[in-house]
Amino acid sequence: MTTAAPSGQAALEPVDTYLGAVLSAIRPLAARELSLAEADGAVLTSDVAAEWPLPPFDNSAMDGYAVLAAEVATASQDAPVTLPVRDAVPAGDTRAHRLVPGSCLRIMTGALLPAGADAIVPVEWTDGGTDQVAIRQPAAAGNAIKRAGDDAVPGDVLLPAGTRLGPAAIGLLAAAGHGTVLARPRPRITVISTGNELAEPGTPVVPGQIWESNSVMLAAAARQLGCPARRYPIVPDDTDALLAAIEDAMAAADLLVTSGGVSMGGEHDVVKAALRRLGTVRFTKVAMQPGMPQGFGVVGEHAIPLFTLPGNPVSAFVSFQLFVRPAVDALQDVEPKRLPGARAVLTAPVRSPAGKRSFLRGILDPESGTVRPVLGQASHQLASLAKANALIIVKERSTEMAEGEIADVLELP
Amino acid sequence: MTTAAPSGQAALEPVDTYLGAVLSAIRPLAARELSLAEADGAVLTSDVAAEWPLPPFDNSAMDGYAVLAAEVATASQDAPVTLPVRDAVPAGDTRAHRLVPGSCLRIMTGALLPAGADAIVPVEWTDGGTDQVAIRQPAAAGNAIKRAGDDAVPGDVLLPAGTRLGPAAIGLLAAAGHGTVLARPRPRITVISTGNELAEPGTPVVPGQIWESNSVMLAAAARQLGCPARRYPIVPDDTDALLAAIEDAMAAADLLVTSGGVSMGGEHDVVKAALRRLGTVRFTKVAMQPGMPQGFGVVGEHAIPLFTLPGNPVSAFVSFQLFVRPAVDALQDVEPKRLPGARAVLTAPVRSPAGKRSFLRGILDPESGTVRPVLGQASHQLASLAKANALIIVKERSTEMAEGEIADVLELP
Repeated sequence: MTTAAPSGQAALEPVDTYLGAVLSAIRPLAARELSLAEADGAVLTSDVAAEWPLPPFDNSAMDGYAVLAAEVATASQDAPVTLPVRDAVPAGDTRAHRLVPGSCLRIMTGALLPAGADAIVPVEWTDGGTDQVAIRQPAAAGNAIKRAGDDAVPGDVLLPAGTRLGPAAIGLLAAAGHGTVLARPRPRITVISTGNELAEPGTPVVPGQIWESNSVMLAAAARQLGCPARRYPIVPDDTDALLAAIEDAMAAADLLVTSGGVSMGGEHDVVKAALRRLGTVRFTKVAMQPGMPQGFGVVGEHAIPLFTLPGNPVSAFVSFQLFVRPAVDALQDVEPKRLPGARAVLTAPVRSPAGKRSFLRGILDPESGTVRPVLGQASHQLASLAKANALIIVKERSTEMAEGEIADVLELP
Repeated sequence: MTTAAPSGQAALEPVDTYLGAVLSAIRPLAARELSLAEADGAVLTSDVAAEWPLPPFDNSAMDGYAVLAAEVATASQDAPVTLPVRDAVPAGDTRAHRLVPGSCLRIMTGALLPAGADAIVPVEWTDGGTDQVAIRQPAAAGNAIKRAGDDAVPGDVLLPAGTRLGPAAIGLLAAAGHGTVLARPRPRITVISTGNELAEPGTPVVPGQIWESNSVMLAAAARQLGCPARRYPIVPDDTDALLAAIEDAMAAADLLVTSGGVSMGGEHDVVKAALRRLGTVRFTKVAMQPGMPQGFGVVGEHAIPLFTLPGNPVSAFVSFQLFVRPAVDALQDVEPKRLPGARAVLTAPVRSPAGKRSFLRGILDPESGTVRPVLGQASHQLASLAKANALIIVKERSTEMAEGEIADVLELP
């Protein structure tokens, strides 16, 4: 690819400065009451404390017999202790059973411990009788009893504010009786692609038209972050149509991404033209390759963050990973998580324009600690992006790195 | 927790033997025609080759002017070359433009290159004129032109069989014109919890009842793997009701998980009783803690894998990560991916029953390379599980490890 010299242009904005400006402009989402089925990855805004003990009542850890430990203390293989079985207590039995001294009750795993009982004899230590039972091994007081509150007592903080809810935390909320939880959900992301040249994948095209792929790709990238994401239908190069689309998409999104319509010089840059009308989106040239033309701002009464990503697919993808990904964390008010980093030996030389940070596509081999730049580094070359599993960073002050040099790489998800 | 000695019981099955048996019994899902919106994480069963060139036609990489390079070869700041502008070619213009020698055409990024043109002069190198343009810098032949096929030519394998579709691959399918893709989708997982003691979280309970948490937790764990997952409504301890639930759930699931109803001795072990009737599920005691009582088999005419996990929440969670997680990969016919492993220094001693592999809950600190066992290692202690980010492995032949010893750990997702 040939790149125009940035002569006569404003200075480029450093990558980190731009990212910092983006993150500082984002206000966290409000917490919402979420069902547990929609709480995956949501972030707590306050501590969740136990209101009841966990477990909520003394119960049996095993299938067996509820006894007084003192009454089975002499039990052995040769001289079993035989007790009458008064009743059976299955799990879910809510009757108030009481152990009558000199007898026992059959009891199942998870069942409420009868009043007066102080040990469970596992069925494996007995003959399994139903009217009476021969107990062949003594059980110490407390044996196989799960005590109320031994996991948590009322007032214990089960999950502190700031917790991102994973499966165990969501299970814990359920176990503690919560049907819903107040938390910041993962942001809903809508991706809007603009361009008269765009056709829906799977439909016929003629020369001059291409299949729309950016919103397909970026919606998948958003789902990979755990965010509910959707593509907006393709918007033509028309300022009013785009503004109407943004207005419409705002109603069901917490973050908007556009792709295309932000190149450097054309009157056909519909995204720029439309958003300049709103006046809340700033366009800038970031010192990076790919992905120089960036725009970010907030739109609508809820100040929804909007990113205008470049239209070249590799530029759009790299921009998403570098800027939209941390913005998603910022919307949940957690420390933005960058892509995992590594260092690896280049298997081939790479080049980079002076003054820009390059993010070249590479294949990282963690076994050998090497990274191989893929063929086809131009920003429209999506086929080579699909082969890559890493981005090779070439710093602003470098214009080339030699084979064998150690490069910083970002691992792609 | 007290554990019964396994005296008089059949030998325990080693963890790896059990996992091997599970994986070898799984038949991969059939490939299905998936829309691109539902293709996240699906696995290709055959190569996808390009049918058309990518890009599909020569087009402009920048906003500028389509010219004959030879006609602007002398252009400079002081002596610009001025050419009449015959027409403008926006992106999406499907007319067959032709460059008339001695003139140029305005052209936008992504627009079809006019026949006869061999270079693009970026608008930044000109005065931006619309009737005529002063060009101040020469453009070499090929400048700012993206050639048809420079990313892929027809017949190139874009994505090989076995590719797990991520955002870039899905974008590439769209760019190559595919509206759908034939691939093995992520399996749909349904989780069924059984037990008369179970109440829906958020509803009132009385002593003897507990809030159902396992299906909530395991469905979240399945979604964390990228799988569509749902909880089945709580099933009471009734064999017919459970069989009906399994029959019903099979219609919309590729993998079934039950939780509870598999303890060692009770006639209330409804899951065991129900599935013994089917005869295709094998119950076994695995040499691990937590999670000893396991069951696995296939059910229904489509041979849907079914796991019967123990009812204690920590046992269910650990079993899911150790057995269900790799089974999901096997259903997509890819090499099962275990949890990522690490080695870390124990900050406290741990114990483990002889002959069992223990998976203790710990807090791994990658910075210091240490892992701290959490308090509350019993298999019902979900609050302590929710604090953990790793499982500490104590091997079968060890019964304890000292503070300062190096342990193998599995990182929880």
